[in-house]
Amino acid sequence: MSNLTSNEQIKYLVEAIESDREQDLRPMLAELHPVDTARLLESLTPEQRPAIWAEQSNADRGEILVEVSDGVREDLLQGMDNPELVNAIRDLDIDDIADLIPDLPDDVLADVLFTVDKEARAGLDEVLSYPEDTAGGLMNVDAVAVRENITTRVVIRYLRLKGEIPENTDKLFVVDRKGRLMGVLPVTLLLTSPADERVGRLVDREPISFRAMEPQDNVTGAFEKYNLVSAAVVDEQDRLLGRITIDDVVDVIRENADQSLMARAGLIDDEDIFAPVTKSAKSRALWLGVNLITAISASWVIGQFEETIEKLVALAVLMPIVASMGGNAGTQTLTIVIRGLSVGTISQANAWRVLKKELLVGSLNGLIWAFAVAVVATVWYHDYGLGIIIAMAMVINLIVSAMAGVGLPLLLQRLGIDPALAGGVALTTLTDVVGFFALLSLAAVFLM
Amino acid sequence: MSNLTSNEQIKYLVEAIESDREQDLRPMLAELHPVDTARLLESLTPEQRPAIWAEQSNADRGEILVEVSDGVREDLLQGMDNPELVNAIRDLDIDDIADLIPDLPDDVLADVLFTVDKEARAGLDEVLSYPEDTAGGLMNVDAVAVRENITTRVVIRYLRLKGEIPENTDKLFVVDRKGRLMGVLPVTLLLTSPADERVGRLVDREPISFRAMEPQDNVTGAFEKYNLVSAAVVDEQDRLLGRITIDDVVDVIRENADQSLMARAGLIDDEDIFAPVTKSAKSRALWLGVNLITAISASWVIGQFEETIEKLVALAVLMPIVASMGGNAGTQTLTIVIRGLSVGTISQANAWRVLKKELLVGSLNGLIWAFAVAVVATVWYHDYGLGIIIAMAMVINLIVSAMAGVGLPLLLQRLGIDPALAGGVALTTLTDVVGFFALLSLAAVFLM
Repeated sequence: MSNLTSNEQIKYLVEAIESDREQDLRPMLAELHPVDTARLLESLTPEQRPAIWAEQSNADRGEILVEVSDGVREDLLQGMDNPELVNAIRDLDIDDIADLIPDLPDDVLADVLFTVDKEARAGLDEVLSYPEDTAGGLMNVDAVAVRENITTRVVIRYLRLKGEIPENTDKLFVVDRKGRLMGVLPVTLLLTSPADERVGRLVDREPISFRAMEPQDNVTGAFEKYNLVSAAVVDEQDRLLGRITIDDVVDVIRENADQSLMARAGLIDDEDIFAPVTKSAKSRALWLGVNLITAISASWVIGQFEETIEKLVALAVLMPIVASMGGNAGTQTLTIVIRGLSVGTISQANAWRVLKKELLVGSLNGLIWAFAVAVVATVWYHDYGLGIIIAMAMVINLIVSAMAGVGLPLLLQRLGIDPALAGGVALTTLTDVVGFFALLSLAAVFLM
Repeated sequence: MSNLTSNEQIKYLVEAIESDREQDLRPMLAELHPVDTARLLESLTPEQRPAIWAEQSNADRGEILVEVSDGVREDLLQGMDNPELVNAIRDLDIDDIADLIPDLPDDVLADVLFTVDKEARAGLDEVLSYPEDTAGGLMNVDAVAVRENITTRVVIRYLRLKGEIPENTDKLFVVDRKGRLMGVLPVTLLLTSPADERVGRLVDREPISFRAMEPQDNVTGAFEKYNLVSAAVVDEQDRLLGRITIDDVVDVIRENADQSLMARAGLIDDEDIFAPVTKSAKSRALWLGVNLITAISASWVIGQFEETIEKLVALAVLMPIVASMGGNAGTQTLTIVIRGLSVGTISQANAWRVLKKELLVGSLNGLIWAFAVAVVATVWYHDYGLGIIIAMAMVINLIVSAMAGVGLPLLLQRLGIDPALAGGVALTTLTDVVGFFALLSLAAVFLM
C-alpha cells in the first residue's frame, strides 16, 4: 500500500490546489484510485473541479460518476456533452449504469443502449425493471451458470474458454434446462474435487437466494448473517436472473448508515459541500421551517403563563433546564428504541416491557436530577417552594420523555413514517411543551 | 430462504414467549441461525433468557456469544460455569475467541488455551498481541500459504489433501522461504490456468496487504475501495501473519455506524435493553449530568437579564425560538462537517472555504427566518420594535451557529476528542447561550 492513507492524499492534493501548486501533483493525481478522485472532487469547489476532471480517462470518469455524491455528480454531468458521457459510462458494469440512469438525459440513455452489446442491453433492461431498493435493482447480470449433468472437467474447460471470470466469483450457479436455479457450486469445491466428478454430485442444493422484488434490507441482512460473497437473484419461477455481490452490499450498508446520520439533522439530500449558497440554503430551509413551527408551539405554551412569569421571573430563567433535560433523556430512549426496531430486538411483541423499563429508568433519573436542580434553584433564589416545583416538573417531564421515546417511534412506524427522520423533532417538541407547561402550571397553582 | 424474515421470526418467538406458548416454538427455535438467536436473546428480559439458552448446542452458544451485544453477553456469561464456557468457545475461530477474551474470567482463558491445539494456541497468542482496533486484532490465522516455485498441479493436490478450504478464500498467499509475502494467487486463476504452470508466473506481485499495527479504519477503507474479499496481514519484515476477510470487515463497518448513532445521544455502552433499571439509569446519568451543567449555564445567561424580562415578559416567551433555530441550523452544519472529516472531504486544507460557504448559508437562512419570526412577533405583541430585535438576534445566532458547526468539530479533532460524541452538546450549549444573550441584551439596550 501507499505510505499515505486516502485521507492524507486527498488533504495533500487539496492543499496543493488551494495554493495553485497544481503542477506538483500530476504524478499523484495520475495514480489516484477513482474512489479517491471522487472524494477529491467532493473536496473542491465547482470552479476547481473542471481542471481535475479534464485529466481523467474515460474509464475513470465512469467509475468516478458512480462513486461521487449525488450533488457533485449533478455538477459534473452539467459540464459534459453527450458523446463524453457515453464514452465515460458505456464500459461500466450493468448494475452501475442502471444506478446512473435516473440522473442522465434521455438522449444519452438511448446512445448508451446503442453502443453496448445486445447481451448487455438485455441485462440492463432486466435490472432497470426493478426498483433500486430491491434485490433486482441491486443485482448484476454477470452470474456464471452451469448445468448439473456435466463434469468438473467440462466446467473448468468452459471457464478457460470464457477467459475472464467476473470479480467476486466464489460460486457458480447450477441451472436446469429452463434456467431455473438448482443450486450452487463453490469454486473452491471445484478445485478440490476429482476431475471427472459430476456437478450434480457437488452442488449445494439449498443456497441462499433472493426473489427480484425482495427488499434490499433482506439482502444486506442475509449477506451479514451468512457471510456471503455472492448470491443468486431469481424470478417467481426460480429462474436465475443475476447475482448480487458483497461489494455492492457493503456500499448499501455504508450509504444507509450515512443516511440515518444525516436524516437526524433533517439533511435528506446527499449534499454537495460546495454547492452554490442559494441551493444549500434552500435544501436546509424546509427543516428550519418545520422547527420554527414546533418552536412557536412551545412559545405559545409559555405565552399562556405571562402573568405567572411576570410575578416570578425566576421561572423564565429556570424553564429551559426542565425542557432540555427532558429532551436529552428522551433522545436517549428514542435512539435505543429506533435501533431496536431496525435490528428487530424491539417490536409490538415486547414494546410493553421496553416501556415499563424506560419509565422506571426515567423516573429514577428524574428523581436524582430533580433533587439536584431543586438544590440549585433553592440556593439561587432562596426559595424552597420554587425548588420543589421545579423538581416536580422535572420528574413529570422525564417520565413523559420516556413514554415518548418508546411510543413515538412505534407510532411513526405504524404511520409509515421513518422514525429516524421525524422522531427527534417530534420528541423534543413534546418535551419542550411538557417541560414548560409542567413548570409554569405548577407554579401558577402552588406559588401564586 | 425461509418465508419469514429474521425480524418477523424474532417477533413471532418473542410473542410466543411473552404469552407462555413456548412449546409451540421449539421447531422454529431449533432452526434459528445463531445470529437470530442472539437478537432473540437481546429481545428478552434476563429472566426469560435461561430457558432459551438451555436449548442451545455448545457450538451455537459460542457463535451466539460472539454475536450478542456487550450487555447481554455479560448477562449470559454470568449464568455459565467454567466447563460450559470452555465447551462453548473452544471451537470458535481464533479471531472470535480473541474478541471474547476481554470478557472472560482468567481461569477460563487458561482452560481454553489448554484444550485448543498447539497451532491454534500460537495463532491466538499472535492475534492477542495486537490491539482490537488494528489490522492484527482483526485478522484470522487461517491464511493458506503456498511457495512460488511449485506448479498449479501441486497446489491443487495440496488443497485436496488439506480437505477443507477456509471460508472466504478467494486467494492463496504466496510466500518465500522465510514466510515473507511475495504476492497472491487468485483461486479463479488457479482454475483457469494450465495444470503445470508455475505459481511464480501467475502470482499478483502487488497485492493490497496490511501491517499488523495499521488502524482498523485503513482496513475497512481499503476493502471498500478495492472490493476485497480477503487480504494479508504482515509484520514489519513483510512476513505473513494472517488474513482479514470481508465478513469481519462488514461487522466492523456496521458496529462503527451503530456507535456513531448511539454516541450522538451520549450512549457509549452497547446497552442491554432489558438490563436492570439501576444499571441503565447509571449508564445514562453521566450524560444527563453534563447536560444539566450546560443547561444551567444557559439559564445563568437568562438570569443576568431578569429586570429586562420583568419589564417585557414577551422576551421570555420568544427566547426559546431564537435558541432552538440556532441549534437546528448549527446541527445541520455540524453533521455535514463531521461526515466530511470522517470521509476525508473536509480537512484543514479547505476548512476556510467550508466556513465561508456555511456562513453565507447561515446568513441567508438567518435573514429569511428572521423575517418570518419578526412578523410572528410583531403580530403577536403588536410591537414592531420587538420584531426587529428578535430578527437581529436570530441573524446573529444563525451566523454563530454556522461558525460553531464548522469550527467546533475541527477544534475537537485537534484536541483528540471525538466530534461525534461531544460536538452536539457543545454546539447546542453555545447556540442556547448566544441566542438568549443576543435577544435579551439587544432588548435591554434598545427597548428599555
